[in-house]
Amino acid sequence: MGAYDQLKTRIRADYPYFLEYRTRWSDNDMYQHMNNAIYNFLYDSVINSYLFEFCGLKPDSSPQYGMVVHSHNDYFASISFPACAELGLRVNKMGNSSVTYEIALFEKGVDQVRSVGEFVQVWVDRETGRPSVHGIRQHVRDGLQRIMVDTHLSKL
Amino acid sequence: MGAYDQLKTRIRADYPYFLEYRTRWSDNDMYQHMNNAIYNFLYDSVINSYLFEFCGLKPDSSPQYGMVVHSHNDYFASISFPACAELGLRVNKMGNSSVTYEIALFEKGVDQVRSVGEFVQVWVDRETGRPSVHGIRQHVRDGLQRIMVDTHLSKL
Amino acid sequence: MGAYDQLKTRIRADYPYFLEYRTRWSDNDMYQHMNNAIYNFLYDSVINSYLFEFCGLKPDSSPQYGMVVHSHNDYFASISFPACAELGLRVNKMGNSSVTYEIALFEKGVDQVRSVGEFVQVWVDRETGRPSVHGIRQHVRDGLQRIMVDTHLSKL
Amino acid sequence: MGAYDQLKTRIRADYPYFLEYRTRWSDNDMYQHMNNAIYNFLYDSVINSYLFEFCGLKPDSSPQYGMVVHSHNDYFASISFPACAELGLRVNKMGNSSVTYEIALFEKGVDQVRSVGEFVQVWVDRETGRPSVHGIRQHVRDGLQRIMVDTHLSKL
Repeated sequence: MGAYDQLKTRIRADYPYFLEYRTRWSDNDMYQHMNNAIYNFLYDSVINSYLFEFCGLKPDSSPQYGMVVHSHNDYFASISFPACAELGLRVNKMGNSSVTYEIALFEKGVDQVRSVGEFVQVWVDRETGRPSVHGIRQHVRDGLQRIMVDTHLSKL
Repeated sequence: MGAYDQLKTRIRADYPYFLEYRTRWSDNDMYQHMNNAIYNFLYDSVINSYLFEFCGLKPDSSPQYGMVVHSHNDYFASISFPACAELGLRVNKMGNSSVTYEIALFEKGVDQVRSVGEFVQVWVDRETGRPSVHGIRQHVRDGLQRIMVDTHLSKL
Repeated sequence: MGAYDQLKTRIRADYPYFLEYRTRWSDNDMYQHMNNAIYNFLYDSVINSYLFEFCGLKPDSSPQYGMVVHSHNDYFASISFPACAELGLRVNKMGNSSVTYEIALFEKGVDQVRSVGEFVQVWVDRETGRPSVHGIRQHVRDGLQRIMVDTHLSKL
Repeated sequence: MGAYDQLKTRIRADYPYFLEYRTRWSDNDMYQHMNNAIYNFLYDSVINSYLFEFCGLKPDSSPQYGMVVHSHNDYFASISFPACAELGLRVNKMGNSSVTYEIALFEKGVDQVRSVGEFVQVWVDRETGRPSVHGIRQHVRDGLQRIMVDTHLSKL
């Protein structure tokens, strides 16, 4: 089973952190379903909510922050306003200064996953905008560790 | 007490219909609070959610729909991601083919209202894009009537 | 002639500052024309572009910035992706710490104005978030003065 | 040289179709540069502008339309309001019912590319929302062919 087919079978239990987002009228585009860029808005939101709550992130003052350097997303089925979206989050990989998040979008009341994507952040120093030489600070690492999945075990 | 000061004292009980919207990371602008245009996105969303649920609106097929011809908004205090917003809705006025909605934004867990605005819609025929000569259809009027407030009594 | 009818007759020559914005696919909503909240995004953009260029605004460091406390907008005709929008800007009023901007949206190649609105900003100190007691700084006032219109003369 | 390093060296001449988009105030997020999801908005816009102009697409009536099933993006350097973005577009691959677009974002006046991404669309029938059995219609193929790049030659 290839990576794409594996992602398509993701279930809610694959994600340790969840938030619900009500879709907005303007999320739908002219084809009457949620525009592809809105998925990234929601992915960004669940990641940053987690960073606020469990990693002490303060976007206007923290000495480091994560900058998205790569994103990709697979769209399996559409979702439309006024449905509620449920966003699941986990960490797939953590290096010295980079983190790979996996995010999934479900529709409230529906089993099948709508989309699965990854965001790769590089953590930079606020003052320089350059990758932090000493890597991601320990309290952030600790927070991210809590939702890290052993992707070797899960064979992804 | 002027209109502005009256609006500032609005409470949740002034609105018969409520929906909760989680704010998104991108809602905040460079000043670290929700951008003014996002309020309109949320106002639009609560209005259209109501129209879907109680007035049978189907944006891709209903013979009539409401087009916003005027909007105004007073911002009393800011709200910031990742707070939850609670949107209250009521109808202040209904004419032959126009409706005036009042919408208020509260922050979950906070008494004081953040903003109050009005949207005026003119209902047009899908085929022509022109105001419906026979006015808003009865089942839509019935739905809107349920959240209509006697603004003479409420002295606004 | 009432205020609404006057606004409807606005022409490009009524605005001393202009910027062109290409509309985006996602600006259109399910009714195939630009969503009402997008007008506010564009109004905000032309105001802040002017503040950057002529008033020295730096959103991450200026000691003062303008916070929108009121907005209103009249929509006379719709615009749709992929049209280009032309945004005109002027200042209608300036007080000690507040500014009233008037913004108009035209469609490239079309004479008739699409929408006219106003934004009222109160200038606050970055440190406190409270209105600046000594008012808007002189170099900002000087920049705004350059696009201020004598609304008594223009009878609005 | 790996794929990532190759993408990083993209120049304007690699793209046969270009459109300029002025950034908006709200495009910047709390870190003072354009939010990652906005790139997708712009990618979508340049693709659909091309489809309007050269492939006869009409989003409210064409019998087929392209649905995004996969997207990915590499962010090499940031861009910030009020800069102008220049979006370059080409087609990397075309199958029976799918198209792979490559899109690049440049900043006006700057040589180095800011980001490069791909969108994969599957063309579906409007009536069913299912992939078109007879594939993409000929006049759409003809239009897309005009900006198709021989990726074997370009070694990507």
